[in-house]
Amino acid sequence: MNNFSFYNPTKIHFGAGQIQTLKDEIPADAKILIVYGGGSIKKNGIFDQVTDALEGKTFLEFGGIEPNPHYETCLKAVELIKTENIDFLLAVGGGSVIDATKFIAAAAQYDGNPWEIIETFGSAVKGALPIGCVLTLAATGSEMNPTSVVTRAETQDKLFFNSDHVRPLFSVLDPKTTYSLPAKQVANGVVDSYVHVLEQYITYPVNAKVQDRFSESLLSTILEEGPKALKEPENYDVRANLMWSATQALNGLLSTGVPGDWATHLIGQVLTGFYGLDHGQTLAIVMPAVWTYKVEQKKQKLVQYGQRVLNIQETDQDLIAHQAIEKTRTFFEEMGIATRLSDYNLDETIIAGVIEKLEAYQFVQLGEHADITPTDVAEILKLAL
Amino acid sequence: MNNFSFYNPTKIHFGAGQIQTLKDEIPADAKILIVYGGGSIKKNGIFDQVTDALEGKTFLEFGGIEPNPHYETCLKAVELIKTENIDFLLAVGGGSVIDATKFIAAAAQYDGNPWEIIETFGSAVKGALPIGCVLTLAATGSEMNPTSVVTRAETQDKLFFNSDHVRPLFSVLDPKTTYSLPAKQVANGVVDSYVHVLEQYITYPVNAKVQDRFSESLLSTILEEGPKALKEPENYDVRANLMWSATQALNGLLSTGVPGDWATHLIGQVLTGFYGLDHGQTLAIVMPAVWTYKVEQKKQKLVQYGQRVLNIQETDQDLIAHQAIEKTRTFFEEMGIATRLSDYNLDETIIAGVIEKLEAYQFVQLGEHADITPTDVAEILKLAL
Repeated sequence: MNNFSFYNPTKIHFGAGQIQTLKDEIPADAKILIVYGGGSIKKNGIFDQVTDALEGKTFLEFGGIEPNPHYETCLKAVELIKTENIDFLLAVGGGSVIDATKFIAAAAQYDGNPWEIIETFGSAVKGALPIGCVLTLAATGSEMNPTSVVTRAETQDKLFFNSDHVRPLFSVLDPKTTYSLPAKQVANGVVDSYVHVLEQYITYPVNAKVQDRFSESLLSTILEEGPKALKEPENYDVRANLMWSATQALNGLLSTGVPGDWATHLIGQVLTGFYGLDHGQTLAIVMPAVWTYKVEQKKQKLVQYGQRVLNIQETDQDLIAHQAIEKTRTFFEEMGIATRLSDYNLDETIIAGVIEKLEAYQFVQLGEHADITPTDVAEILKLAL
Repeated sequence: MNNFSFYNPTKIHFGAGQIQTLKDEIPADAKILIVYGGGSIKKNGIFDQVTDALEGKTFLEFGGIEPNPHYETCLKAVELIKTENIDFLLAVGGGSVIDATKFIAAAAQYDGNPWEIIETFGSAVKGALPIGCVLTLAATGSEMNPTSVVTRAETQDKLFFNSDHVRPLFSVLDPKTTYSLPAKQVANGVVDSYVHVLEQYITYPVNAKVQDRFSESLLSTILEEGPKALKEPENYDVRANLMWSATQALNGLLSTGVPGDWATHLIGQVLTGFYGLDHGQTLAIVMPAVWTYKVEQKKQKLVQYGQRVLNIQETDQDLIAHQAIEKTRTFFEEMGIATRLSDYNLDETIIAGVIEKLEAYQFVQLGEHADITPTDVAEILKLAL
């Protein structure tokens, strides 16, 4: 096991009806900005639950956060915050809304060009407005971590930053808020959380038994419950199991003391930046290709995954690894997420542009061995055609 | 899955050499009291590592914390703190030292009779001195939770309290610090952490898939690594896996959204209070008896445990449950911890006294169904003779 530090002070209130905890979690004298997305929360009753819980408190609202939230939109929220002297941000939505809120919270207290927050991967952040969340989509884990991903529409840059200053103080996770999601968003969330686990698990063994088994716990649960969420959207336990899985998948617990890959995410983010593909779609495309390209390096963990999670009964290690890759692809496709670039009308002509962008970001040593160069990414993308 | 809240802000620094993080974690101007136990840390080099890391900082020391730490001893530390204007407590030891430090931290800021901290189960605590820990024994999980158990020697009362105020700010977990432990302490720690998981797992199913699988992850790991720690005391990975398991076993994660039992602990604490049995010994005695007495109520989870963790291949549910109990007993005994009262020269004459104590504490509705009365405890203790 590798050395590590772990820290996660975000408080979680989980379960039906927990939106009412906003009453106590947000200070009485706070001036709150409710940040949200396309407005579904106004149709499905969640906004009303939130405002009921905020009764007697002062709040304004800022809607219109996009999926893959735009830097430009976030800056408009920052303006509003400064004009209105907002001192508490309440994100009500999925990962995009929470990520945007994190950027807004940091930018509102940042002197200088706010893009520096991204350029420094967050190290420039020295403070942020306090954040609370009401999560409405099991997917990114943003509700319990210090990470945010924003997209600069103008330049098609989709990039992340990390800062302890933007960790949510608390997050409310009510599985019922996910009942009315469109199937595509459910599926994307399932793929996203599943891939989060895999990025921290399909690397190489370091005899970290707790972390490996925790990863397998989440993979098995998401594998069982993901398809059920599409078939039985109002099955509370299914939604609850998926929601808690997605949060645990990226709250820092799985990555303790083990190597991480993340090549799939970094390549996928470029695809979203350029072509607007959903985050989950890019992961479903790239991960099987990364694994196929790196099958020798990843074989031990692919076999462990194949045996413990996918219940593959073969004995030949190569065969198990191969089947593990294909079964993972099949799972994504069963969730309704296509796994080939061609499924999205993209072909080999995109490769040069993706590589150029990765080089511009200096993402030129990807993967758990830091040995995936732009040339390798080209090969990986060919495997994903 | 039941509703829950989860909150755990303790920072963890895990791995060989991490004691050096004390440099940065403790404020430069702090006046520190190092709290420790019987003095083994002065022989095995841990005390020197700690004081090296504290170079340039002001510290005093307070040794002599007992296993099952005495209230009376803690009060002496409180006196010293007040005389010396100590403002930071550094616990260096196992669960007893950390538990004592938590009580000391609360008592140092408590106006009134400090036993009220215990009598109110911690609700009277309104503040505490800041605490850091250097853990030297994988066992209680105290390094990452708000719980403390202290014993009033005068009255033979062993009781617990909980308070967010006494959560350690940080804990250093260096597996190497556990290399020189006596076998008996290692075994007690293994049994303690294993039983912590079981108290949160062998209850009744609530379709909490993540929590169940996380529990099974820890049980499987402790089952594999526990015996190895006795045979290969300087196997780093074994110690690391046990240490991280013990912390995860009682940091609040496993109990999210599921029922808890804890009858074994509450009965066991009375046995320690009266007869000085090690904590691990009392758990090994009481748990198989509780399960045997409550086998019908606990059958579904016993079967799940038998199949998923113990790999029992039978098909008959009663047989699996029975074997799960016996295999658990066998595991404790293989660790060198006897599982019968008679092994400790105790007989049925102790029963009346134990029941009287439980009634005095008003612990008269134990277990996940709150249906274990003093009469039931008598039957349970008969099964443990």
